[in-house]
Parts: sequence; C-alpha cells; structure tokens
Amino acid sequence: MSDVVVKLVEKLGAEKVLQGADVKERHYHIWHMGEGLHAKAVTLPTSTEDVSTICRICTEHNQPIIVFGGLTNLVGSTETTGEEVIVSMERLNKIQEIDEVSRTMTVESGVILQHIQEAAKEKDLLFPLNFGAKGSAQIGGCISTNAGGLRVLKFGMTRALVLGVEAVLMDGRIISSMKKIIKDNSAYDLKQLFIGSEGTLGVITRAVLKLVEAPKSRNSAFLAFNDYEKLVSFMKFIDRGLAGALSGFEVIWRASYEVMTGPSAHNRPPIPHGYKYYVLVESLGADQEVDKLNLQGLIEQTILNGLAEDAVMADTESDLNWFWNIREDVKVLAEQGNVDQHFDVSAPINEMGSYVDQVEVQINELEGVHAAYPFGHLADGNIHFIVMKDHAEEPLKNRINDLVYNPLTELNGSVSAEHGIGLHKKKYLALCRSAEEIALMKTLKIAFDPAGLLNPGKVVDV
Amino acid sequence: MSDVVVKLVEKLGAEKVLQGADVKERHYHIWHMGEGLHAKAVTLPTSTEDVSTICRICTEHNQPIIVFGGLTNLVGSTETTGEEVIVSMERLNKIQEIDEVSRTMTVESGVILQHIQEAAKEKDLLFPLNFGAKGSAQIGGCISTNAGGLRVLKFGMTRALVLGVEAVLMDGRIISSMKKIIKDNSAYDLKQLFIGSEGTLGVITRAVLKLVEAPKSRNSAFLAFNDYEKLVSFMKFIDRGLAGALSGFEVIWRASYEVMTGPSAHNRPPIPHGYKYYVLVESLGADQEVDKLNLQGLIEQTILNGLAEDAVMADTESDLNWFWNIREDVKVLAEQGNVDQHFDVSAPINEMGSYVDQVEVQINELEGVHAAYPFGHLADGNIHFIVMKDHAEEPLKNRINDLVYNPLTELNGSVSAEHGIGLHKKKYLALCRSAEEIALMKTLKIAFDPAGLLNPGKVVDV
Repeated sequence: MSDVVVKLVEKLGAEKVLQGADVKERHYHIWHMGEGLHAKAVTLPTSTEDVSTICRICTEHNQPIIVFGGLTNLVGSTETTGEEVIVSMERLNKIQEIDEVSRTMTVESGVILQHIQEAAKEKDLLFPLNFGAKGSAQIGGCISTNAGGLRVLKFGMTRALVLGVEAVLMDGRIISSMKKIIKDNSAYDLKQLFIGSEGTLGVITRAVLKLVEAPKSRNSAFLAFNDYEKLVSFMKFIDRGLAGALSGFEVIWRASYEVMTGPSAHNRPPIPHGYKYYVLVESLGADQEVDKLNLQGLIEQTILNGLAEDAVMADTESDLNWFWNIREDVKVLAEQGNVDQHFDVSAPINEMGSYVDQVEVQINELEGVHAAYPFGHLADGNIHFIVMKDHAEEPLKNRINDLVYNPLTELNGSVSAEHGIGLHKKKYLALCRSAEEIALMKTLKIAFDPAGLLNPGKVVDV
Repeated sequence: MSDVVVKLVEKLGAEKVLQGADVKERHYHIWHMGEGLHAKAVTLPTSTEDVSTICRICTEHNQPIIVFGGLTNLVGSTETTGEEVIVSMERLNKIQEIDEVSRTMTVESGVILQHIQEAAKEKDLLFPLNFGAKGSAQIGGCISTNAGGLRVLKFGMTRALVLGVEAVLMDGRIISSMKKIIKDNSAYDLKQLFIGSEGTLGVITRAVLKLVEAPKSRNSAFLAFNDYEKLVSFMKFIDRGLAGALSGFEVIWRASYEVMTGPSAHNRPPIPHGYKYYVLVESLGADQEVDKLNLQGLIEQTILNGLAEDAVMADTESDLNWFWNIREDVKVLAEQGNVDQHFDVSAPINEMGSYVDQVEVQINELEGVHAAYPFGHLADGNIHFIVMKDHAEEPLKNRINDLVYNPLTELNGSVSAEHGIGLHKKKYLALCRSAEEIALMKTLKIAFDPAGLLNPGKVVDV
C-alpha cells in the first residue's frame, strides 16, 4: 500500500477507501471499456469534509486525483493511467432541500439527474435539464461539464440552472456559495469557474439548482423542408409565434431520418422519406388544448406560406412519444456500421446548412465510412454528427476529425458545444480558442491547482 | 506632463489623450458629484488595439487605470483619487453587426444600452436588458457589472444575454471570445470572469449579445394583498398559469405605493391605498387579445380564490404606461427627504416578507430618518430600499447599513443583488461571502492583474 493510501485509510476509515480487487471490479466508463479500473485506490466520501480531507492528503503526497460521477462522459475525462486516486461521488447522493417558494433544490453532487427530475415533479416543479444519460449522470458531472441537452433553447445550459455551488480546491479549502437566490452581484461569481471546467479547478460537492413551475401542456409537430433558408425562416416564425413557449427545435437531416424511421428502426416515419430536412418542434405551456390549437394554427400558416413541404401535429400523448422516440433513438444510427465517431459542434445558424452539406459529402467520400448522420439542436446552433465506419484505425479517424473540425475556425464555431474537451478533443481546442485564451486558461489552472493534481492532462496542459 | 502621459500621447496621438482643463471639465459620475474630475489624463480609445496600447503603457509605468462607461454606477466604482489614467469607452460606440438568424448583435463596449434596444427593435428583435439608466449606461458597463433590471425573471441577468466578450488584460493581451453561438463547451468559459467583475480583471472592448424575437403582446395587472403567504402563492399560481410568459413580478410595499401614487406623485393609484402589498405583473406573448384574456382569467381566479384583496387589469396601452410609470417613478420617493440611501439586497423569497417588516420598523425608529421605502423584483428574490433621511452623517448611515445588511448573513442572502460592490460596499462583502471565497477572489485578481493596476481598490483589496 502506498503512503498516500495508508494515510487515506487512516483518516477516512477502510470502508471509504477501496483497493486491489475492489478497484479492478470497477470501470472508468459506464460502457465498461477496458478490462477493469486502473487506479491506486477509489475513495468514497460521504461528506464535503471527506472530500476536503482526500484533497489535502493527496496534495501533501503530490498525488493526482480524478473525480468520478456517473461516468457517462464522451471525451475521455475519466480515463486513468493507474497512478491516480479516484474520488467517486456516489455516496454523496442526498437531496437536502426542496424550496417550493424559491423554486430551488439543494443537492449533493452525486445525486443522479433523473432522481432530481422526479423529486422536482413531485412538488409540481421542473428541473429542465434533460438528456439521454439522465438515469446515470450525476448532477456534479452535469455541472462540471455544463451539460446541454434537449431543452437548452427555452431553459439554457446547466450554467443557467445552477444558483449555488460548493467545491473543494485541491489544497482542501472548501469554497461554498450555496445561496437560494437568483441574483447575486456580491463580487466575483466564483461558481462560474467550477461550472464547465470539467473537474480541473475544483471538486464540486453540493449545488443549489434552479427549478421552474412544471408546464401543464406539451405539444409537438414534425415538419419537412427542402430549403435551408425556408427552414431558418420557419425557426424565426415559430419562435415569434410561440413567444417563449418554444422548447425544442430539433433538425434531423435526411440521411439520419431515413435510418431513424427506416426498416431497422423501432419507429414509423410521421412524414414520408425523401425531403432534405425534418424538423421536430416542441412547445411547453399552461393549457393543453389551447396551446395545441395555437401550435396547429402556426403550422397551418407555415404550410400556407409555402415554407414547409409537409407537416404533421402530434394529436395524442402517444404521438408525442412516437415523435420524440424517433429523435432520441440515436442508437439505431450507431447500428449502421462497426465503429462510431461522435461530434457535437456549433456554428452560427445561417452557416450551418452549407457546413453540414460540405462535411456530409466529404465524409461519405472516404473509404471505410458507411455514412455520416447529422442531426441536432439547430436553434441553439449546435448539431451532432454520428459517423459510422468499418474500422477504428487512426488515419481514418483523424481524417474525419479534420473534415468536421477544420472548417469551424473560419465559421467562428466550436469543436464542442456540449460534451467538453476532456482528453480526446484537446488537440482540436486551438481551432476554436486563440493562443491568448488558452494561455489564460493555463493561468487559471495554475492559480487553482498549482501542482496540477486535479484531473491532470484533461482540458488544458500545464 | 508625467512620463506615462507623454508616452500615451506619443503612441495614441494628442486627440485621444485629454489633459489639464479638459480633464477637469469631466466628472466621475453622470450626476456630476464633486467639483470636476481628478485624473492624470483621460484616454479616448477608438479600437481594441488602442485599449491594448493604453494598458501596456500603463503597466510599463506602474500606472493605475479606471475604465469609464456611462458613469451610472451606484457603488463608487468610477471614483478617482487623481492618480489614475482614465480609459473612457465613449468612442468605441459602433454596432458592428446584427445577425437576424443567429439573433445576435456584435457591439463595441461603449454603445449605449438604449441604442442597442432600438437597433434590435428595427429588426423585430428584442435585447431584453432594461433599466432606468438605459439612456446613459454603456453595454460594457452593463456587462462588467452583470446588470439586472426589470425583466430578469424571464430573460435573466446580463450574464445570460452575453454570448461573447472581448477583453484586454492589464498587460495588453487581448482575450477575444466573440462567437455568435449559444453553446460552447470548448474548455473554460473565460467571458464569465469578465462579466460581473466590475472592471477589475480586464477591460471589456466588444461583445456578442443574444437577442430574442420581439414579443407581440404586453399585458399587465395591479393587485393588492394583505398577507405575504398569499402573495407568494399568487406568484407561483401566475407563473404556472402564464407558463413562461411572466416577465415581471414587482412588489411595492404600502409605504412606497402610497408615495408613488400620493399627492406629490405624477400617477393616480389604480388600486386604493391601505393594503400591505401591491403587485405589478407583466406578461409578454404573441397575441395581444388572447394573452390579455388569459391574464384576465388568471386574475379573476386569484380574486375568486381569495388570494388577492383587489386587482385591476391594464385595459389599454395608456393603462400599461400608467401602471409601469408608478413602478418606475423612484424619483418621487427620493423627494421625501434631504438625503437618500439606496439598497439592492436579495434573500430567499419565503424569508423576504418578515425581513422587510423587521428592517422597515427598525429603520423608521431611527432619529433623523424620514421613511424607508421597500419595493422590487420579488420573484427574483431581490428588493430595493430607499431610505430618506434629514442628513448625511456617517453614524446614521452606518446604523442603517447595519440594519439592512446584518440580517442577510443568517438569511443566506446578498448585500448586492444588482449594483455590485465597487468601493462603497466592500466593507459589507464579508457578510455574504466567506473568508475562503474572498481569498479565492484575491487569487483571481492577482492572476489577472498582478500589479493591481486595474480599477484599484474596487471589489476586493489585494
């Protein structure tokens, strides 16, 4: 047992420090990639003070740590070398308070997103953050990666939904800003530094989340377009017509739609194949029937105005689920080849149409590529590509990365709208952030974690 | 002429460096407090590069600078000692681009807020930030103070409305993150550091602002309550009923309402005097008539349910203006005594009722106090006090500060919801931020501005 592990056991007790076979049984990703976890030890803190103790001891022993949440990260942020001590937040899983008047929830950082959603719902409130991995993702991970998802358009990224954060610095200091208030301009808003820095500046231990009154209606429609400019005109038209009720604007490009509603998929197509773009809109409101008629009226006008080629409203709850199951069935895309490569880029909306056209054509021309599937949150300027390939060889992988990422410099876009940089995107960071920005990031990293012990090698190198 | 001024003239040209009588003619605040500006020089940059040059030269000469925007700050952030060089942003006043599809506006930081609002409106878009000083306040100042105002409830603080920031560090480095995208998780979100740090970490030179489609309807109602719990129940009821359309929830306490609609005011009372709380709600939507009927229905239910004592809808545009003129006529409160003292505190909403009661009683008992007037953005957990006094003597001023600020520690509130800390609130900062937080703020300040030359002595001391 190394000195640092001896010390951790001494201070925390053996039941909070896993070693040997207990470590090997675990994995660094929920998909159980690799043959078992490589790490010196896995610590299981049950309090902020435990986390502080772990950080202090590890700093004293110059021992790097990696924080584990729900392990659903897509950019290698939880990959280990074997030399790290893991801080797993799974036992920090208590919802401490729901304040129905301030509309806030105070939680420990290991609480699973879906549990937060359910607890809010019981009080007739909504925690709007929502994405596929909600059953595994922990709120601390959502905050440290500034997670996005399906309702950013109306409610914002995680950053907009966090009122307070408590974090532990690598030297053990506890930085607690746990206020249940929406507005606080009392000097620097330190929580902004912990949000989205992917666990490289501090370990998030608790948070105050912003809730909203639960919407009472949900309506959706599917539309088809052949012309990108008309699609964009429709986006403005429906956003204005719904005046703040528009909560989803998902675009599925033809190639993706035809698989997502094709013979191997679970869902029939609500609109026939053959159009260039399919758009799924959602509105959240207060009255199911009134809001449905309102959305229907706007969709009818869209057809009359010649903006859309075809459209269909979700008439029942089961239609709604049908429509959204299509969008959420990303898995069927990943079954179209041996190996997948995921992207979550962003660019100005008016550039996105031609950008996707170009990237799609170029990727499809590559040998070893089965298909490129574009879809995503267009009104946020953010789309995903899933590229299906025959093999995982580096040259093809790098070529695809170049085709997707390189144009973003000129478009002034981002190589990561949602997933973060982690380990895997570090070499592309300079395509969308300047040398001066990256240098300032390093200054920040050094100010918070001078020895570079916190999730080392992730996001920025120091 | 001091060495640094010689150098500034040499590099920028004399027309961009005011000295002597030209400095004296100016003021550090729009209210022209004091007998004229004390400063070594006033620089008038016309580009980001000019700002960079000024910062570099001042760093070389160990010369402190203060950034001037619209000079509407309420916490002494632009006060000078006479030893500083001023960087006035007034010539950086160009709107560079409005992108109607991305719904963004790219601006230099000296553009006046009202000009931004008007330019957005011409494109049928809205820049939602709005407050009394909009005709003078510059967007760079709004961003550096994370300004709030009247529509935070629906659209958020300035932080939520800024997609990109370009700032110059004190050593002259330009940190430019000027993307027209809503989602960007490509490593640290550096702009969050410049937003709300009151010009102490960098000089903001440009920004990309988020616009929204202009609402097509606006409706309001005034209601009266005697019971704080019923008021809070109404807040939840109307928020749920309007499902995202609620854009204003202003509470005016009795003492304030009776002055704002009293004999010396410009506005008649829409609801009689005598109730404890008056609430002004606003909804923004897509259809004037439909949305009016909707709000009216909810207000009728509020009366039927026995939540409110009285209520009146704004029936016409002129009613709307009448209602909002009452709320915005803060000046009439400031005419009720010789000297005023302003507050902008926040606290959890369910604590706010008893907190205001207690503070109001205690302040009114003080000799030399004319009255305490509470009002504000209750749904944001933020209220203002204006205290009218006979004189400006320090002991009374400090006593009032103590009565307002001291309870906020236990309530876990903030001594500044909107206005910031600046010079005047520094001594109260520790009431709502921990020693660890303040120490980390100093670490940040030192990392960005090691010589302490940027707006020195404001927000945090280093």
